[in-house]
Amino acid sequence: MKKKIAILGASGYTGAELVRLIATHPHMQIVALSGDRKAGMAMAEVFPFLRHLNLPALVRIEEIDFSHVDLAFCALPHATSQAVIANLPRDLPVVDLSADFRLRDVAEYQKWYGKPHAAPDLQKDAVYGLTEFYRDEIRTARLVAGTGCNAAAGQYALRPLIEAGVIDLDSILIDLKAGVSGAGRSLKENLLHAELSEGTMAYAAGGTHRHLGEFDQEFTRAAGRPVLVQFTPHLLPMNRGILASVYVNGEPAQVHATLAARYALEPFLEVLPMGLLPSTRDIRGSNFVHLGVIADRIPGRALVIAVLDNLCKGSSGQAIQNANLMLGLEETAGLMLAPVFP
Amino acid sequence: MKKKIAILGASGYTGAELVRLIATHPHMQIVALSGDRKAGMAMAEVFPFLRHLNLPALVRIEEIDFSHVDLAFCALPHATSQAVIANLPRDLPVVDLSADFRLRDVAEYQKWYGKPHAAPDLQKDAVYGLTEFYRDEIRTARLVAGTGCNAAAGQYALRPLIEAGVIDLDSILIDLKAGVSGAGRSLKENLLHAELSEGTMAYAAGGTHRHLGEFDQEFTRAAGRPVLVQFTPHLLPMNRGILASVYVNGEPAQVHATLAARYALEPFLEVLPMGLLPSTRDIRGSNFVHLGVIADRIPGRALVIAVLDNLCKGSSGQAIQNANLMLGLEETAGLMLAPVFP
Amino acid sequence: MKKKIAILGASGYTGAELVRLIATHPHMQIVALSGDRKAGMAMAEVFPFLRHLNLPALVRIEEIDFSHVDLAFCALPHATSQAVIANLPRDLPVVDLSADFRLRDVAEYQKWYGKPHAAPDLQKDAVYGLTEFYRDEIRTARLVAGTGCNAAAGQYALRPLIEAGVIDLDSILIDLKAGVSGAGRSLKENLLHAELSEGTMAYAAGGTHRHLGEFDQEFTRAAGRPVLVQFTPHLLPMNRGILASVYVNGEPAQVHATLAARYALEPFLEVLPMGLLPSTRDIRGSNFVHLGVIADRIPGRALVIAVLDNLCKGSSGQAIQNANLMLGLEETAGLMLAPVFP
Amino acid sequence: MKKKIAILGASGYTGAELVRLIATHPHMQIVALSGDRKAGMAMAEVFPFLRHLNLPALVRIEEIDFSHVDLAFCALPHATSQAVIANLPRDLPVVDLSADFRLRDVAEYQKWYGKPHAAPDLQKDAVYGLTEFYRDEIRTARLVAGTGCNAAAGQYALRPLIEAGVIDLDSILIDLKAGVSGAGRSLKENLLHAELSEGTMAYAAGGTHRHLGEFDQEFTRAAGRPVLVQFTPHLLPMNRGILASVYVNGEPAQVHATLAARYALEPFLEVLPMGLLPSTRDIRGSNFVHLGVIADRIPGRALVIAVLDNLCKGSSGQAIQNANLMLGLEETAGLMLAPVFP
Repeated sequence: MKKKIAILGASGYTGAELVRLIATHPHMQIVALSGDRKAGMAMAEVFPFLRHLNLPALVRIEEIDFSHVDLAFCALPHATSQAVIANLPRDLPVVDLSADFRLRDVAEYQKWYGKPHAAPDLQKDAVYGLTEFYRDEIRTARLVAGTGCNAAAGQYALRPLIEAGVIDLDSILIDLKAGVSGAGRSLKENLLHAELSEGTMAYAAGGTHRHLGEFDQEFTRAAGRPVLVQFTPHLLPMNRGILASVYVNGEPAQVHATLAARYALEPFLEVLPMGLLPSTRDIRGSNFVHLGVIADRIPGRALVIAVLDNLCKGSSGQAIQNANLMLGLEETAGLMLAPVFP
Repeated sequence: MKKKIAILGASGYTGAELVRLIATHPHMQIVALSGDRKAGMAMAEVFPFLRHLNLPALVRIEEIDFSHVDLAFCALPHATSQAVIANLPRDLPVVDLSADFRLRDVAEYQKWYGKPHAAPDLQKDAVYGLTEFYRDEIRTARLVAGTGCNAAAGQYALRPLIEAGVIDLDSILIDLKAGVSGAGRSLKENLLHAELSEGTMAYAAGGTHRHLGEFDQEFTRAAGRPVLVQFTPHLLPMNRGILASVYVNGEPAQVHATLAARYALEPFLEVLPMGLLPSTRDIRGSNFVHLGVIADRIPGRALVIAVLDNLCKGSSGQAIQNANLMLGLEETAGLMLAPVFP
Repeated sequence: MKKKIAILGASGYTGAELVRLIATHPHMQIVALSGDRKAGMAMAEVFPFLRHLNLPALVRIEEIDFSHVDLAFCALPHATSQAVIANLPRDLPVVDLSADFRLRDVAEYQKWYGKPHAAPDLQKDAVYGLTEFYRDEIRTARLVAGTGCNAAAGQYALRPLIEAGVIDLDSILIDLKAGVSGAGRSLKENLLHAELSEGTMAYAAGGTHRHLGEFDQEFTRAAGRPVLVQFTPHLLPMNRGILASVYVNGEPAQVHATLAARYALEPFLEVLPMGLLPSTRDIRGSNFVHLGVIADRIPGRALVIAVLDNLCKGSSGQAIQNANLMLGLEETAGLMLAPVFP
Repeated sequence: MKKKIAILGASGYTGAELVRLIATHPHMQIVALSGDRKAGMAMAEVFPFLRHLNLPALVRIEEIDFSHVDLAFCALPHATSQAVIANLPRDLPVVDLSADFRLRDVAEYQKWYGKPHAAPDLQKDAVYGLTEFYRDEIRTARLVAGTGCNAAAGQYALRPLIEAGVIDLDSILIDLKAGVSGAGRSLKENLLHAELSEGTMAYAAGGTHRHLGEFDQEFTRAAGRPVLVQFTPHLLPMNRGILASVYVNGEPAQVHATLAARYALEPFLEVLPMGLLPSTRDIRGSNFVHLGVIADRIPGRALVIAVLDNLCKGSSGQAIQNANLMLGLEETAGLMLAPVFP
């Protein structure tokens, strides 16, 4: 019998991506969809690409009877999530895709998100959802906090290197290229086609991007000492995809070997042969991560590049992977869809 | 036990799309891949987006032992297909994605493709692969000829109207907008990003596009009298997708009702409510067709718009749908993947 | 001495395009820029691409002293223009880029724009700004109404044919492909990059697009009898450019000859040799129009394709061309910039 | 009287860009265009966007009578240039856009370009064409070597900082994002729209890109000691534009002040206020460079971003700027065209 799934906040891109993936998931079935401003509308109106599916209409959260729900995905905006999840039944497994439960220290949350944490008691139970590094905790968690999409890309490139101690910790630099869907379906001038296509620019530069909170937390934990990285994201004229160019001081062959060994058994992480570099086109629409390593001409310096689809592995795909673990399903169930190219 | 599949011509876009779809097909397994110029290479080298799959390497066709193959897809260039298929075992089910067997009359083939047909005896057995209109013949066919991608889009909009006699047959006009992957992975100046992005132009205008051969054949058959349509394709800066704007003289409500009735039970064809028009974004990466009808301000004139993904429903998805029928599998097996948006 | 120019509504795309063109205009100088919501800001903040220019800051319209202004461009939204222009000095030459004065019959204005005309007395003096067809009237006009960008493209293809009587008037069909900047810098979901890139759809179909009001007015005048055309615009993932595919019943050679003769002396209109078809890429950023004609395989049917840049020749370039005439300058002054390709 | 200009290699993008710019140059006139493989064709056939111009047809170089030529631009492929220029009249001023004369040390040329230099005697007379840093030498040069487009972007960000000694020389890192026209009009699979749009990847990574030869030469000269930088270019789905993200260790305010002071009088270089970062969209189609500086959260680290149009300021615009100097014209003549946005 299929697991009954509710998606809260189904009218945004990550909500729609959850529906897309669950559409062919063998063990999940959508029983409720919420979308406050669009309550009453059919999903086919909000997202015509889902027209072929037989889906419940969008309702307001308070209209959902959670007693028949096995797991809820919460794809609401930051800050909203804390309040909503605080009101859900305490035994309902929840995968949250917002930033609200990513930072263990609520003071860090306030620092990066500019307001006090609204559910500090729930925060204590939240598990950080980078599956490959928190698999056991996720399996038994009640609340899993999905990672930032950029934060995921950077960590896939760096965590094994930090844990293994094969790179210098004080000169890590992440130059990241991000597709536009990461900004959501929000009406902002800089997201218009006429403003965005055929060009690029940096944003949230200078160490101000909120995903730095996750890097700080996770790299410091992995290293056992404070680690601060440089991180500059750039907005690219592409809808899906993140490419993180990660510059490290370390022996390139050792860097490559460390990543290859760490991810050898991971179903979604592919480490390319030494010297080959990945493209975002090769993971689009999928839950896969491709990683490449190349030595610089300057000895002792290496470039690691990680690519993933921000909406899938960076968000909704990760969420389903975690939900599979929480529900006792096969971890890869519903997620082996091949990338879409071209 | 899974059906054993060979793909001849796996180094092009339609070949890669077959692999993508079969990757999650519950009843098919790829046992052989050919790619003459790239024989000896791994698919992961030719198409890194398929890196996560355990696939046979590319070989030359003559290296394949077809005695262990249940069905072959032939995704070779036009003209090559005829020669290759003529040399395959006569009892091997074949789905051809080229233009080589689409036209029943070999004189028509010569007219549109500029050279004599190389396998006229095989042509007699070929079934035209527009699934929804030749389902029974396909089920028992040995050789199915995949349709042109543009030809499919136009026919989905027009065949039921012609069959039902609800439109004027002498004033049909198809203005089509096509994505670039329809031109294949060929090195042509006009397909370069710098030449193609941010602009549009017509091509093969003036009644010269080869898919007119299919329109003539099929519409004349459907009408029981000669039907000639006007057809102008335009190349758009998008990778996947065809939008056919079909202008007809007929009663709009009747046009809509005819299409809705004809496709009511079809798993992949969605007729939108009267007045709503489809977008190529909503079928990208999928086997679905969306159709819309709107009345013009001039009485007795209607616009029908059909959208499909040229690589999927217009080519490789159609091919798998037909192969499912030929192999006695469920027609929709492996093809219910939701579109990828955004 | 340079002519002193004011631009009202300089914070939108057409306003910015006026500034771009005037930046290298030998006889114009910008002395005032208005932008109500952005009053007080520097143009370099609103449009950083104009940073190198020494421009006046944006002000509110009432702050402008028009006694020192030789001509005003009014690039305000529809409906706003009527009220603003009604309050300008009556002897100030004005080129309006909105739709407010395009339709001579104020009843037609109300029909297409849904509200009563706010300045019917001014309407009487307004000249329709399709330069090549109203040159003499424009030269002496006080108020010139810029045409719709789509309306311009369609008329360049059709007016000479209608005037010469070489095509059937009851079967004209315009299938138009439009870039996104035509929709302006407005925050609409369907204009987001993630919604728009890599796909296409029709909009304002079924004879509802407002530029039909211009087609009806102008074609009826040119023909001396009522002419109704079919017109369907499609939105394409490109920022600039319009391609109008115009289907007519007429002798193709005569169609071509008529256009070639009519435009032989026009500085901005290029009729390609018979059978060649234009691309929007070849006029991007310029004031040029390219026109092509091809015969269909069905005798007596022709396809005319016209391309222009909606922001330039379709709007701000046309406005400057008209202003040049009104100010007694050389018509082409400042407008011979070559297109930007790629 | 206008200067008579020949363009050798006019059938590529940089050749076409030269024609575009000269089209409105007040003091230059094109008298000869060469294009070996396309000799005999009109430019309007090769580049329809130049159709409105009255241009000489393409010829073979040996057909040109250079006695009537005031200056030749050489926009030929690398390696070809050396041979061609060696055969031109020794008193003919030449601006070469290829890489053939950029490296003063012919051994460095061989190292980066893989073949011996074919005109080492000419190399001695060549001046490196980064205008703002070699203005006086260029004025009197007979042969000016255009810089690499990426090399120009990196140097605008870094040269003043190196010269002023305000940054650490051993930790300079350039992560560059490049548009596709920099690769020219060549038929390569990775430049196809279907391969390139909607994605990104690094290329020539690991310290192998040839423009490193220029960085090494120029930065070492500027510093008076060897300087090696890290440099990784990424290919983006945009036709024009380079964005260089340059990471330096230095006091951010001092970095900004140094750049602002150095470029205060430069007509084409705009240093944005501290903390503002530029976009490639704001310089597209123009000869302008925008530079921004932002402090990192880690003290003593700064990010400098430089953007330019690779075809214009990075290549053909620079070439004309240099030619203006060589011909005694105003340096900015013909180059003040505003960027094209959107």
